[in-house]
Amino acid sequence: MPLDNIAMPGNTKSEAQQAPPFPPWLLVQPILEGALREDLGGRGDITSDSVVPPGATAQALLRARRDGCIAGLPAALATFRMLNEGLTLEAKVADGQRVKAGEVLARIDGQARAILTAERTALNLLCHLSGIATATAAAVDATAGTFAKIVCTRKTTPGLRVLEKYAVAAGGGSNHRFGLDDAVMIKDNHIVAAGGLAKAFARAKHHAGHMIKIEVEVDTLEQLDELLPLGADAVLLDNMPPEVLRQAVEKVAGRMITEASGGITPERIAAVAASGVDLISLGWLTHSAPILDIGLDFETR
Amino acid sequence: MPLDNIAMPGNTKSEAQQAPPFPPWLLVQPILEGALREDLGGRGDITSDSVVPPGATAQALLRARRDGCIAGLPAALATFRMLNEGLTLEAKVADGQRVKAGEVLARIDGQARAILTAERTALNLLCHLSGIATATAAAVDATAGTFAKIVCTRKTTPGLRVLEKYAVAAGGGSNHRFGLDDAVMIKDNHIVAAGGLAKAFARAKHHAGHMIKIEVEVDTLEQLDELLPLGADAVLLDNMPPEVLRQAVEKVAGRMITEASGGITPERIAAVAASGVDLISLGWLTHSAPILDIGLDFETR
Amino acid sequence: MPLDNIAMPGNTKSEAQQAPPFPPWLLVQPILEGALREDLGGRGDITSDSVVPPGATAQALLRARRDGCIAGLPAALATFRMLNEGLTLEAKVADGQRVKAGEVLARIDGQARAILTAERTALNLLCHLSGIATATAAAVDATAGTFAKIVCTRKTTPGLRVLEKYAVAAGGGSNHRFGLDDAVMIKDNHIVAAGGLAKAFARAKHHAGHMIKIEVEVDTLEQLDELLPLGADAVLLDNMPPEVLRQAVEKVAGRMITEASGGITPERIAAVAASGVDLISLGWLTHSAPILDIGLDFETR
Amino acid sequence: MPLDNIAMPGNTKSEAQQAPPFPPWLLVQPILEGALREDLGGRGDITSDSVVPPGATAQALLRARRDGCIAGLPAALATFRMLNEGLTLEAKVADGQRVKAGEVLARIDGQARAILTAERTALNLLCHLSGIATATAAAVDATAGTFAKIVCTRKTTPGLRVLEKYAVAAGGGSNHRFGLDDAVMIKDNHIVAAGGLAKAFARAKHHAGHMIKIEVEVDTLEQLDELLPLGADAVLLDNMPPEVLRQAVEKVAGRMITEASGGITPERIAAVAASGVDLISLGWLTHSAPILDIGLDFETR
Amino acid sequence: MPLDNIAMPGNTKSEAQQAPPFPPWLLVQPILEGALREDLGGRGDITSDSVVPPGATAQALLRARRDGCIAGLPAALATFRMLNEGLTLEAKVADGQRVKAGEVLARIDGQARAILTAERTALNLLCHLSGIATATAAAVDATAGTFAKIVCTRKTTPGLRVLEKYAVAAGGGSNHRFGLDDAVMIKDNHIVAAGGLAKAFARAKHHAGHMIKIEVEVDTLEQLDELLPLGADAVLLDNMPPEVLRQAVEKVAGRMITEASGGITPERIAAVAASGVDLISLGWLTHSAPILDIGLDFETR
Amino acid sequence: MPLDNIAMPGNTKSEAQQAPPFPPWLLVQPILEGALREDLGGRGDITSDSVVPPGATAQALLRARRDGCIAGLPAALATFRMLNEGLTLEAKVADGQRVKAGEVLARIDGQARAILTAERTALNLLCHLSGIATATAAAVDATAGTFAKIVCTRKTTPGLRVLEKYAVAAGGGSNHRFGLDDAVMIKDNHIVAAGGLAKAFARAKHHAGHMIKIEVEVDTLEQLDELLPLGADAVLLDNMPPEVLRQAVEKVAGRMITEASGGITPERIAAVAASGVDLISLGWLTHSAPILDIGLDFETR
Repeated sequence: MPLDNIAMPGNTKSEAQQAPPFPPWLLVQPILEGALREDLGGRGDITSDSVVPPGATAQALLRARRDGCIAGLPAALATFRMLNEGLTLEAKVADGQRVKAGEVLARIDGQARAILTAERTALNLLCHLSGIATATAAAVDATAGTFAKIVCTRKTTPGLRVLEKYAVAAGGGSNHRFGLDDAVMIKDNHIVAAGGLAKAFARAKHHAGHMIKIEVEVDTLEQLDELLPLGADAVLLDNMPPEVLRQAVEKVAGRMITEASGGITPERIAAVAASGVDLISLGWLTHSAPILDIGLDFETR
Repeated sequence: MPLDNIAMPGNTKSEAQQAPPFPPWLLVQPILEGALREDLGGRGDITSDSVVPPGATAQALLRARRDGCIAGLPAALATFRMLNEGLTLEAKVADGQRVKAGEVLARIDGQARAILTAERTALNLLCHLSGIATATAAAVDATAGTFAKIVCTRKTTPGLRVLEKYAVAAGGGSNHRFGLDDAVMIKDNHIVAAGGLAKAFARAKHHAGHMIKIEVEVDTLEQLDELLPLGADAVLLDNMPPEVLRQAVEKVAGRMITEASGGITPERIAAVAASGVDLISLGWLTHSAPILDIGLDFETR
Repeated sequence: MPLDNIAMPGNTKSEAQQAPPFPPWLLVQPILEGALREDLGGRGDITSDSVVPPGATAQALLRARRDGCIAGLPAALATFRMLNEGLTLEAKVADGQRVKAGEVLARIDGQARAILTAERTALNLLCHLSGIATATAAAVDATAGTFAKIVCTRKTTPGLRVLEKYAVAAGGGSNHRFGLDDAVMIKDNHIVAAGGLAKAFARAKHHAGHMIKIEVEVDTLEQLDELLPLGADAVLLDNMPPEVLRQAVEKVAGRMITEASGGITPERIAAVAASGVDLISLGWLTHSAPILDIGLDFETR
Repeated sequence: MPLDNIAMPGNTKSEAQQAPPFPPWLLVQPILEGALREDLGGRGDITSDSVVPPGATAQALLRARRDGCIAGLPAALATFRMLNEGLTLEAKVADGQRVKAGEVLARIDGQARAILTAERTALNLLCHLSGIATATAAAVDATAGTFAKIVCTRKTTPGLRVLEKYAVAAGGGSNHRFGLDDAVMIKDNHIVAAGGLAKAFARAKHHAGHMIKIEVEVDTLEQLDELLPLGADAVLLDNMPPEVLRQAVEKVAGRMITEASGGITPERIAAVAASGVDLISLGWLTHSAPILDIGLDFETR
Repeated sequence: MPLDNIAMPGNTKSEAQQAPPFPPWLLVQPILEGALREDLGGRGDITSDSVVPPGATAQALLRARRDGCIAGLPAALATFRMLNEGLTLEAKVADGQRVKAGEVLARIDGQARAILTAERTALNLLCHLSGIATATAAAVDATAGTFAKIVCTRKTTPGLRVLEKYAVAAGGGSNHRFGLDDAVMIKDNHIVAAGGLAKAFARAKHHAGHMIKIEVEVDTLEQLDELLPLGADAVLLDNMPPEVLRQAVEKVAGRMITEASGGITPERIAAVAASGVDLISLGWLTHSAPILDIGLDFETR
Repeated sequence: MPLDNIAMPGNTKSEAQQAPPFPPWLLVQPILEGALREDLGGRGDITSDSVVPPGATAQALLRARRDGCIAGLPAALATFRMLNEGLTLEAKVADGQRVKAGEVLARIDGQARAILTAERTALNLLCHLSGIATATAAAVDATAGTFAKIVCTRKTTPGLRVLEKYAVAAGGGSNHRFGLDDAVMIKDNHIVAAGGLAKAFARAKHHAGHMIKIEVEVDTLEQLDELLPLGADAVLLDNMPPEVLRQAVEKVAGRMITEASGGITPERIAAVAASGVDLISLGWLTHSAPILDIGLDFETR
């Protein structure tokens, strides 16, 4: 397991601030292997193999080039290790930590070829996940002074869900459903297909197991009225302006978890949070966050 | 092969405008399967399975919600087919085509459960790839009147390179290296590790096969002077302002392909293109383009 | 998809009696392929290949040899199809249906070699899953006149969970957690590791997402008293005799779902159900149910 | 290889009593990985990850809760190691050993989260395989004083054949064919498809390689008479009462290996063995043996 | 299954001359997929995709360029189908058939791109397997007038064993062990490790199942004398000249199958066969046979 | 990574003589695993497991039985390690080194069972790759005194391309395209399908990326004349006698790389090389080279 023997920074944060548990290696390994194979192609790194002497060693630093929040550093370092088990890896920050432009994130020491071969794959992953964590952290900041939590959606990049959900958690957000199988979420098209909200809810209640929660999407306060007596666990308030959200929260009065969703831009987060909803779900955290720019520099000695 | 029997739109474009060839199904299938498995989790779509009657059918439309350029529609439609081979799929636009907000991209007809179960996976892929194509198309437009081509980099999302490279091509861009194995690209860290530019180039020339091109990154005109006599196939001009690029292009005088790279924002593309470089490479096409918003609507009948 | 074009019996049952939705083919296919490869070994069926002429055809019947409840028939038939796409397959009963010894379950018509090669793999799966459905159906019968539902556990056979959970549902039971990831279940060892029940619950409440339910195991009424004010979704009443279960149900008074678990033999189900618990979980449904004996006979013509 | 560095008990048994060789790790690893992935689902153990502090350690004991025979302990311990390479694992008994209820089988020491996460998967495997070994050991005991060997069949649980065959061997039984490819076994349906016993045998003799043995199933003494002159290596005497078996054994007179099969319940084993057959094959060893109950307890310190 | 719907030639040969059963598609498919992926690399056939119009069609013929014996034609044709399901494939000869230089083996009709993309992979497989079949056929011819069978060994090309063994059978040879698991073969190093021939044999007899044959390698007639009373099923006579082989065959006198092995060049086959051995095993059939040259030509229309 | 901790011989060769970089372990591992699984089958090495005591150790030597050039020794040694991590492995020669019959290539020390089980798989790979290196080295020798390089083709054994290309490099040859995706190679059938050489070249130039080289096959000097003005990177001169090759080289006059191909037997290499071509491509290096015979001997102690 390449995650072993990576030196991690001493942890002085309180438990609430700690990085979320890193996903199981059995789930992460195939992603890293696939990414490396994709870059190695059919014959490997023909540049480093021809240009760099096999015995050459180097010290390299991963360094943030913008302010942001880090996620995926253990996975990035494991990528280097998968090329060469002899590399010395030392993380300088923990996932979930906010960093400044120029800050050193990790040091990698060993065979120059392996460092150069793994560089792009490791950075692609780290920059992508840190971009998500950074966007999430900004959204979380915008909810300051409210009880609203930022949650992500299933609008993730194909193949990376487990890591993107983790990046949201590292950024201070919470996770909604991981997949189609861990909670019932009745949306408009389901209601159409089932022939009405009450019918759809009844069927879900009948078939879903006792450990499964049920959330229903409503577009209007009228639909909310129809839902309220049914006993759902949560309601997704779709595309409602803050004022309507406030009325919805009042109507619900704690009987369901309330989730605001749909068209919530960064600028609108604070207003939505102020409406009193429990959750604000943001698809763009995972589908449109730009990367956090992080580079790898060789140290001159 | 789920790509079979998808009705495609009549093609009236000239060859130069045609969609690039879709990547081999053997390379695309594992990506789609992985994405579906990720969403199905351990037991499948518990919402549709409980709420929607097994025999219910629906007609659904994929519809653009913003103006943009489409890429990945055959893959998205194949995703539905992987859930149910009996669905009728009809594409209304071809990849590479520019569409308007509200335009229908495809029609899907058949078992409602299958449509709802595949919806998110299909859209995640289609919105992501169309976002890349849309960003590329805008960059290409900004080079109008010059000979500069827009190319992408290896800064792709782990696991999706073959499709992201295709999306760039669908958007009118060209592809740089697909991986570490299909051309030699000597960067600053390689030069450091090899002990100088000339030494690095000589080793590459010696070891690389006769069908392999060699590109070298230079940061300054002085480095370019050092490179010119060596006979590289291409030069990457890193982080140079347009005026310096112009001087570099003049120095090269057609003896190498010239590529501008580094820090080229959308606003700077036109100026860079005007410098006379052959290629402008943009990492953000694949690592930071926001999605193109596309939705799936059930048709009422 | 080998599931296509299997003739299924007309369905005259009310919805509540219908077979549960068959798990997604993407999850079932690797199980069937693995089972077939295991039996084919490195060179295939050397008996049928040498003994049976390649053009020989046969009509075969799957027939129950004992009374029982059927589960997995579509998977069993798909196994035959994976050997030869030209076989005609016709199911005579639906999963979830109770059958009598001697009853014909399906007819298979086509190349004799393919039928003989797939026979054992198909039967191994069908007999195993029908054994689970049969045990479940008997347990469900024993709860007649009560509100208690029979649920299965994570004590499943490695590699077969999705199908075994389905078999329990086909037998009339319900499914508990599918895996470690779809609900929080705090057991005695967790409480020890966390330093007490309240502490464990608080940590779970803090970290688990809003769509995740929390169940806690208690061994005594005293522990139940400690749990009651915390607001868990469900309580597992471990190894309590019916009289104590009755007191526990009274104490809970509908504020949590109550689950009886631990050492509940077939003979004790009725008494446990009469205690008023919502759920009775039985590990032996999936780890120790004997198969339902089903055979394949060639029809003489 | 997680099997390395597991402390095993000193072995004082004679060679004949030793555990059979554990199957190659290359064959066992995919089974363990698949089982772990099945339980981890898409995001891992949300209970332990939220409830148990990351640094918490524990000492756990695997303990038999019933008398029985152990099989699969190295695989069970490897499962823990696959979660965390740092765990200390110490087996107290060897596979094939008979244990008493309450006996400690192994000690596991290290990160509490990893122990709790792997617990169910490890136990599912160990209890299942030990159940098979226990049933086999009882069957072997019932043949005491005869030369009959207990053998298993291809009626195994899909995906687990290599481990179940091993468990039978650990219980003192022998293995029949591992798959369709390692010996010819001509059954009734083959005879029908080939057009008669003699024809079927001749075709097998002609096509099978020189290192392949041929066994033929007969239902009656008349069929046995037909088979005797043909020179098969073994005969399967199907569903014959002990008295008929005795006559069959006499007729064969050592010219073929004799195998009794079909409907042999535990109570009938001794009588069948007394008939003088060489082998008694029992499908229920692998398809219907109940688990041996084994638990994991945290040690209080 | 790409093997479906390949038109095969009418079969007028007697059963003894028929092609051996083609290996199960489940075992062949991963080989073909792996070979295609290897050639497609990360982006597919950039020549055909750029040079050949997508709608262009072609008729191509597979044609032998040397006399030889064909093996693997169904696999080769399936390779084309895996690229494009719409191709029309027609085999003109069956595996195992001897062909003349210039003879047409198959016709392929359809999309030109698919034909060109699959060409090399299909030919690599077909030429390799036909080379093995051709070498085997020549060796079989050299045994004319004797009872000796030509058999292959486990000296096969990594990854291709199932197909290479099939090619030997297509060439008229027989198969020895497929792997380490289907028969016991005691060689010199085993005898050393076990501490002597008798000890090694006794251990094998004790541990191997009743359906497993045992063969022992001997280097001298003295070793053969030691082996004779033990009751092995077969003896490998290693590196003995024909005259010694003859003496060995006489000593054995039908009590074991006799196999001549070691250093048997094509020229020595007839003499070895004349010694009376049952089997002649030749490693070079599978490890050193040159390909049979077969080409693909476009038909002009 | 089994490649770690293999003792390698001190390297006193100049850089130009060094072994080429071994392919990435991520690409080699699946080949080794597949080869081992193929030989282990469904239950492993039943001979060694029954005959050799589990604790027995041995010292074994890999020894060349013919003169030749070695390739694949690290992979062969890794195969042993994959069976048992505790083996001590010591290479005595490096890949690319020429050895004499009788020379020791490596020493393996440890558990006798593991050595015997891995033996055949390791040797199959090592003998095959060394056979290719040996054939290549002979071809390279034949070009002495010329500038011609020996290159291999895509006529490789399915599944082994990365290792066979490496073996050619170890033998002193160079690599042509690795797959369909790393350079454009326009052959006769492409020209037919595109409607002429000029048309085909223009399409390739238009579509291929800027880092992709284009080679065109010509059969006659007339075709060469047609190609010369187009600006291809390389020309394949197909099936031309040395005298025509000489004329072709003169015509090209350094404007393209020249490659002689087609029907070049070992005896003709020197003459072809003398024609002045840059490259001589030989399909038989990879599709028809006989193995280099290498054996494994137990050392007596």
